[in-house]
Amino acid sequence: MYLSDGKTTQFAHNVQPSLAWPPFQNPVLCEKPWFRGYVYPDVLTPQSSISSTESLVISDPDFQSEDLNFLSRSERYDAAVKKSAQMILKLREYGISDPEEIYCYKSVFRGNHHEALGLHFNMFLPTLYTQCNKEQFEKWVPLAESFKALGTYAQTELGHGTHLRGLETTATYDPATQVFVLNSPTITSIKWWPGGLGKTSNHAIVLAQLHTQGKCHGLHAFIVPLRSMNTHIPLPGVVVGDIGPKFGFDEVDNGYLKLENVRIPRDHMLMKYAKVEADGTYVKPPSAKLTYGTMVFIRSMIVGEAGRALAKSCTIAIRYSSVRHQSEIRPGEPEPQIMDYQTQQYKLFPLLATAYAYKFVGQYMNQVYHRITGDISQGDFSELPELHALSAGLKAFTTWTASEGIEVCRMACGGHGYSRCSALPDIYVNFVPTCTYEGENTVMMLQTARFLIKSYRQASAGHQLSGIVSYLNESERRLQPQSVSSRPTVVNVNDLASLVEAYKLRAAKLVELAAKSIQQELQKRVSQEDAWNNSAIDLVRASDAHCHYVVVKLFAAKLGEIGDTGVHSVLSTLALLYALQGIQQHSGDFLQTGLLSVPQLSQVSQRLKELLAQLRPNAVALVDAFDYCDEMLNSVLGRYDGNVYEHMFEWARRSPLNKTEVHESYHKYLKPLQAKL
Amino acid sequence: MYLSDGKTTQFAHNVQPSLAWPPFQNPVLCEKPWFRGYVYPDVLTPQSSISSTESLVISDPDFQSEDLNFLSRSERYDAAVKKSAQMILKLREYGISDPEEIYCYKSVFRGNHHEALGLHFNMFLPTLYTQCNKEQFEKWVPLAESFKALGTYAQTELGHGTHLRGLETTATYDPATQVFVLNSPTITSIKWWPGGLGKTSNHAIVLAQLHTQGKCHGLHAFIVPLRSMNTHIPLPGVVVGDIGPKFGFDEVDNGYLKLENVRIPRDHMLMKYAKVEADGTYVKPPSAKLTYGTMVFIRSMIVGEAGRALAKSCTIAIRYSSVRHQSEIRPGEPEPQIMDYQTQQYKLFPLLATAYAYKFVGQYMNQVYHRITGDISQGDFSELPELHALSAGLKAFTTWTASEGIEVCRMACGGHGYSRCSALPDIYVNFVPTCTYEGENTVMMLQTARFLIKSYRQASAGHQLSGIVSYLNESERRLQPQSVSSRPTVVNVNDLASLVEAYKLRAAKLVELAAKSIQQELQKRVSQEDAWNNSAIDLVRASDAHCHYVVVKLFAAKLGEIGDTGVHSVLSTLALLYALQGIQQHSGDFLQTGLLSVPQLSQVSQRLKELLAQLRPNAVALVDAFDYCDEMLNSVLGRYDGNVYEHMFEWARRSPLNKTEVHESYHKYLKPLQAKL
Repeated sequence: MYLSDGKTTQFAHNVQPSLAWPPFQNPVLCEKPWFRGYVYPDVLTPQSSISSTESLVISDPDFQSEDLNFLSRSERYDAAVKKSAQMILKLREYGISDPEEIYCYKSVFRGNHHEALGLHFNMFLPTLYTQCNKEQFEKWVPLAESFKALGTYAQTELGHGTHLRGLETTATYDPATQVFVLNSPTITSIKWWPGGLGKTSNHAIVLAQLHTQGKCHGLHAFIVPLRSMNTHIPLPGVVVGDIGPKFGFDEVDNGYLKLENVRIPRDHMLMKYAKVEADGTYVKPPSAKLTYGTMVFIRSMIVGEAGRALAKSCTIAIRYSSVRHQSEIRPGEPEPQIMDYQTQQYKLFPLLATAYAYKFVGQYMNQVYHRITGDISQGDFSELPELHALSAGLKAFTTWTASEGIEVCRMACGGHGYSRCSALPDIYVNFVPTCTYEGENTVMMLQTARFLIKSYRQASAGHQLSGIVSYLNESERRLQPQSVSSRPTVVNVNDLASLVEAYKLRAAKLVELAAKSIQQELQKRVSQEDAWNNSAIDLVRASDAHCHYVVVKLFAAKLGEIGDTGVHSVLSTLALLYALQGIQQHSGDFLQTGLLSVPQLSQVSQRLKELLAQLRPNAVALVDAFDYCDEMLNSVLGRYDGNVYEHMFEWARRSPLNKTEVHESYHKYLKPLQAKL
Repeated sequence: MYLSDGKTTQFAHNVQPSLAWPPFQNPVLCEKPWFRGYVYPDVLTPQSSISSTESLVISDPDFQSEDLNFLSRSERYDAAVKKSAQMILKLREYGISDPEEIYCYKSVFRGNHHEALGLHFNMFLPTLYTQCNKEQFEKWVPLAESFKALGTYAQTELGHGTHLRGLETTATYDPATQVFVLNSPTITSIKWWPGGLGKTSNHAIVLAQLHTQGKCHGLHAFIVPLRSMNTHIPLPGVVVGDIGPKFGFDEVDNGYLKLENVRIPRDHMLMKYAKVEADGTYVKPPSAKLTYGTMVFIRSMIVGEAGRALAKSCTIAIRYSSVRHQSEIRPGEPEPQIMDYQTQQYKLFPLLATAYAYKFVGQYMNQVYHRITGDISQGDFSELPELHALSAGLKAFTTWTASEGIEVCRMACGGHGYSRCSALPDIYVNFVPTCTYEGENTVMMLQTARFLIKSYRQASAGHQLSGIVSYLNESERRLQPQSVSSRPTVVNVNDLASLVEAYKLRAAKLVELAAKSIQQELQKRVSQEDAWNNSAIDLVRASDAHCHYVVVKLFAAKLGEIGDTGVHSVLSTLALLYALQGIQQHSGDFLQTGLLSVPQLSQVSQRLKELLAQLRPNAVALVDAFDYCDEMLNSVLGRYDGNVYEHMFEWARRSPLNKTEVHESYHKYLKPLQAKL
């Protein structure tokens, strides 16, 4: 037991010399020197060239910059543009072109912040690659790749977000002059939010309602020049600017765009699929499903990002909890590490388990996406609806939990978590928008619910479902009234497979409850749509249970891939903790559906406490295994060497308010006030 | 039913003309012109002179300042000092001296931000008032009241927060020169966090371990001059500065203070209670309980603050949800107000109910505090431990829920909630520190638990408890094994009194479970302290249930004070919603303890949906009743006139990044980059 062993065997590093601990005594897991390396490249990421890419950035003096938190917003934007420009040159200089390596390189140099040219890379270029016809490709891609054309992607409007059909910007074709005339006809139609739109971009891909020959053909994409490519001054009819400060993303110039009779040539409409001919004849695109893929890809990336944001936060909070001493457990003894408090473990260890779970889920979705992309290229769309539904729900499920979790980590660091030097405020404000962008989370949950209800109805009608929802067949049989009494109480709270089964049956039951709620509403003679809205709480709950099941299932499946018994053992403990804590949090569901009994719930509580104590000695090693270097974390509290307090003091002294001993406000306001009273 | 009535009867104001609604049609409640006025002065606050104080600030051109969000941190601090100085002069000019009126005046002029001289008023002056002896009072109070002495209160250290005994700063008495020598002996002993310490204050009350005649007598308070009262330059041995940027509180100079052999005269120790005589003899204070009172007062203020922060957030989110149109419920019909979505109602209406609940709890605690203060002044301390325990738990319970609730409100506003113009980011970052300061929340919960366990043991030993924990007597009888079978299932989910009873029994059961967990640990032969730590999860859970019971009970009690049937009816609906939603969120507890059956839980879900629909027409009126003027909310999304989009555009155009058409970073980095590629 670690409590009786004293503190010396619990802790890998973070040993602050002034606290006079025996230096560098290894905990259980860190005794195995391969653990860190093993978990990192093999379990968490497929690449091992990453550490060399990392060191390229870290050792480069050009990237040592002032803490962004000390700068004004305009200076932060300035610093971000500078970094983006430097990075582009460095990547060329080093000849880095592999996408994974580029991603890694950018992650390190960005730290917890965003890239000024983010949308140029993530949206403008990919849209050109996929939606230009041959002539357009030859014209625009070289311009964009040489950054002559700096671009963004302008979809969301001031009054319209999630509901794309509601967008109001118009592009009206004039066959006489062979141009499209673009307009923002109302205040609510002003483009709003696109990153890089305010000051950086000289072009935007604008989504607008296409009107030609007196008819509206819905949303299409147009390349709209915004600023002169020589002077960067906005072009006539283009009202463009920054939308003002936000909760985070301080270094990004999210912008607005009001179009006033802006005329662009016909070939500025992206014409790989849909077309407008010279005389104004509209040619329909072959399939509407093609845009699904990108959404699925971005959402699966966000799931991985949830894992990373939470992993960073856990790294900071768990390391700091091992440095921080507070209060007393036993009177008269020295103040213990706050990591020794059961309440602190209960806050942080389930989040640590969640971070591992989401990293594995992110990997899985990435693999599935790549597999399905292969199928799609061969014309097989069969798995796409399922993946689309799954990616929507998992994006919502993981971003909500991770956002809350980051704040729990921050508050677990006490007052110091509130300082910008902890990095936790930055991680939070830069991650939490994922709950809203790329599909608002509640809307995403309801999309998944739509797929679940459809599948449930198919199963009820006797269809055999395949894929992840196949359990709805099974449950349809199991949950028949006649078989209820014969259903055995199967759950063994010490067995992960049995818990996965319990999560599955919970999901099945909640999907059934939601479907029945809709049915009941319909019996009140309301419309399908109102019945859906009046059951929305149940539908979100069903989606949530479905996603939770998928995460537990994938975590359990991942364990099967791990050969080493030591690593397998500790990750099994994490997986069990993840599953049991979810049951405790949703104990009402498990009791209500008869999947667990009251005595079993007490067992769950007891087992959870044992698991916390069991994980305690390995907690620091488990966050070290995420392998975030200090330069990436940029957190004084999360420093690898644990030398927190000296560096907090040093950081504070660099605060802009300390540039002068006496702030000018003293002379301007306080001294005159004293003189008047 | 509001859905079939169409949109015109649901909405008091916020009618955006461009959306072409019929103007100003009153909803059910707003038909009663007295409603707003009635709820405001009589139910929510005891004062009616407030609106005149409010208008004093609003009409004063001196207080019309630039949005703080557009300024750098140094400019924000500058603006806050300016405002504080102006405010002091204005209060004198207008002759405002009533504390409630001062509070109101400050609330309006502060908006969602903090006061530069906050700690001078809230900690420095009150400490002088209560802990100076007669001579000290005569010297220091006039200096402080005329702002010659600008002060703060320096307790927390870099390495020490909650655990006061751990503070390391020393004050050693030297009888030869009759001075105290103050020192920060370690890096962890540097004072850290006090507001106004960095740049504003020229004095601090410093908490330090008193050493005299070779003995340490624990923490005492000393007045330490920090800066010259003429030049404001730090005095010799005083290393003082700003601790750097934080998550919020940008306009406050939270500071650090390192003391290096700073010598202060003997009479700078606050000597109303404890004393050090000229020869170094230490004289003990008469009672240690006296400091309890201040803590109780501040924590009860924080509970009220939780209600206010949540009320502001609900006002913004509910008004905006009535302005924003999105997606479709029925195909082909216009986009509905997002307030019509059941999921949106489920996010916001329980929070609206919570805001009302916390306002009532804040009022109650304030009343109890004032009553008990009277008792204390007559030497009766009997109710203090209970109130102390209650204030600790309720502070934690309400600040956690309110913090989460503010973020739910923010995200319920979609992307625009992320803009600083929504005011929701400011409300969050300036409120969330209450979870940490004045007692870290988990520690607070455990303090309440200590009182509950002590009371439970007394009840078990046959003592008759009084006050709020008297239910532990009752439950002790009820929960005896022999009586379990005879306990009737009493809960009626439509009856608030019955639900209060259910919350009470849940609390009793969870206190019992926690006490048993400690007992079981002790049977494993661990120490009392380890048994406590190993049961901490259960203890926090018990405290949480106790606080939840108190809030539901007080909300129900408040209804008894409301005579008007219309107001009584709508507030009863809110109270029922509050109670039922809590049951749904903690359904596991209610099922586990046998207080509710599975069919009753389905009734709860059904009833909740009905209550949401019932509240829908009155939602806007219920937030209007909080009566926050636009100047106090400072939120474009929460504007009373609903004219959101025009004002977002106008606000954005004032963003500092829009001061020039082309940002300098284009010339510095982008143009050179384009030239190189």
